[in-house]
Amino acid sequence: MLLEKLNWRYAAKKMDPAKVVSEDKVERIVEAARLAPTSSGLQPFEIIVVTNAEVREKIKAIGWNQSPITDGSHLLVFAAWDNYTAERINHMFDLVNEVRGFRNEGWENYRQMLLSAYPQRDPETNFEHAARQAYIAFGLALAQAAFEGVDATPMEGFDPKALDEILGLRERGLRSVTIAPLGYRQVEGDWLVNLQKVRRPRDQFVTEVK
Amino acid sequence: MLLEKLNWRYAAKKMDPAKVVSEDKVERIVEAARLAPTSSGLQPFEIIVVTNAEVREKIKAIGWNQSPITDGSHLLVFAAWDNYTAERINHMFDLVNEVRGFRNEGWENYRQMLLSAYPQRDPETNFEHAARQAYIAFGLALAQAAFEGVDATPMEGFDPKALDEILGLRERGLRSVTIAPLGYRQVEGDWLVNLQKVRRPRDQFVTEVK
Repeated sequence: MLLEKLNWRYAAKKMDPAKVVSEDKVERIVEAARLAPTSSGLQPFEIIVVTNAEVREKIKAIGWNQSPITDGSHLLVFAAWDNYTAERINHMFDLVNEVRGFRNEGWENYRQMLLSAYPQRDPETNFEHAARQAYIAFGLALAQAAFEGVDATPMEGFDPKALDEILGLRERGLRSVTIAPLGYRQVEGDWLVNLQKVRRPRDQFVTEVK
Repeated sequence: MLLEKLNWRYAAKKMDPAKVVSEDKVERIVEAARLAPTSSGLQPFEIIVVTNAEVREKIKAIGWNQSPITDGSHLLVFAAWDNYTAERINHMFDLVNEVRGFRNEGWENYRQMLLSAYPQRDPETNFEHAARQAYIAFGLALAQAAFEGVDATPMEGFDPKALDEILGLRERGLRSVTIAPLGYRQVEGDWLVNLQKVRRPRDQFVTEVK
């Protein structure tokens, strides 16, 4: 099922500006990202869903003028934590205890281990670690979009600092890492739509150690 | 469909050593990773599938002694390129041209842009970029495992340098980034299996810019 959807999806280069992705589909796409596994369950990133036309025009200008940014109906921005702080770590562990209704000793020891390790590391190392987690969720959001029949174009071609400014992310301790417009492919005008998907053959991609 | 599977999955802490994941399931899990979208389609990572018992014992020893590494039947190792080189970039662009049977001018211009940008950057920056792409595929492999009814435990708790040595990855221009044993949960002995999955509520995770 998933493989079929992954074969269907591609990075749409031209979206139909007349078509709008329904809110329930967007919600499920975001939900796939929210359910993604992350290191220690910390979910060290957030998603900004931009529909505002003016804001998306600004983002397009710092995003190589890629048309899906404004021709799609929604733009997902994945923004990772700029650092792991004690407050952020404690917030998640407290939430886990609250939801589960008890404190697990091993889990509390694990909290102390993280508190003694992460906040002392340099922020850039922590940001890179957080960014990687965001990419797990990014992949799952793209997969869910395919299940919804929605086109999503994964994009790294933008100026992250400029995007952070447009969305006021740094003040919130966040840094943009990757984006994806959601919309519907416009077959006319998309050079990529009918081209074959290319992946390295299995023998160049997988090694077995038996 | 995907959301249901993501709700089913969890990071199994104890796997049943008597149960073996069938090869066709492993193939489809790897295939999901192979189909993952990556920046410029470069697929800057490989997967090593380890079944060898002795090798997995060694990996367990440098992986915090986490039992699923040896109790599962397969261990997936995601290893990212240590750098972007002209040779690697050209290899993928040549493959695309070969599969599609023609040269697209825009695509060739894009190749030149990458060649003028990536190989000159410092290797660490390129490795981090490649690692992020591996995480997209990692997420999709975990999702496919869930579709197969297979447990997969995402793990970053290992010594990457030691793992690189065990598998001889550096000589191949690769660096391990994340691993996942595949197997079947053993309900007895797994402290996590019956605990509620916890994720930050939507309002702490998503912002809308309307």
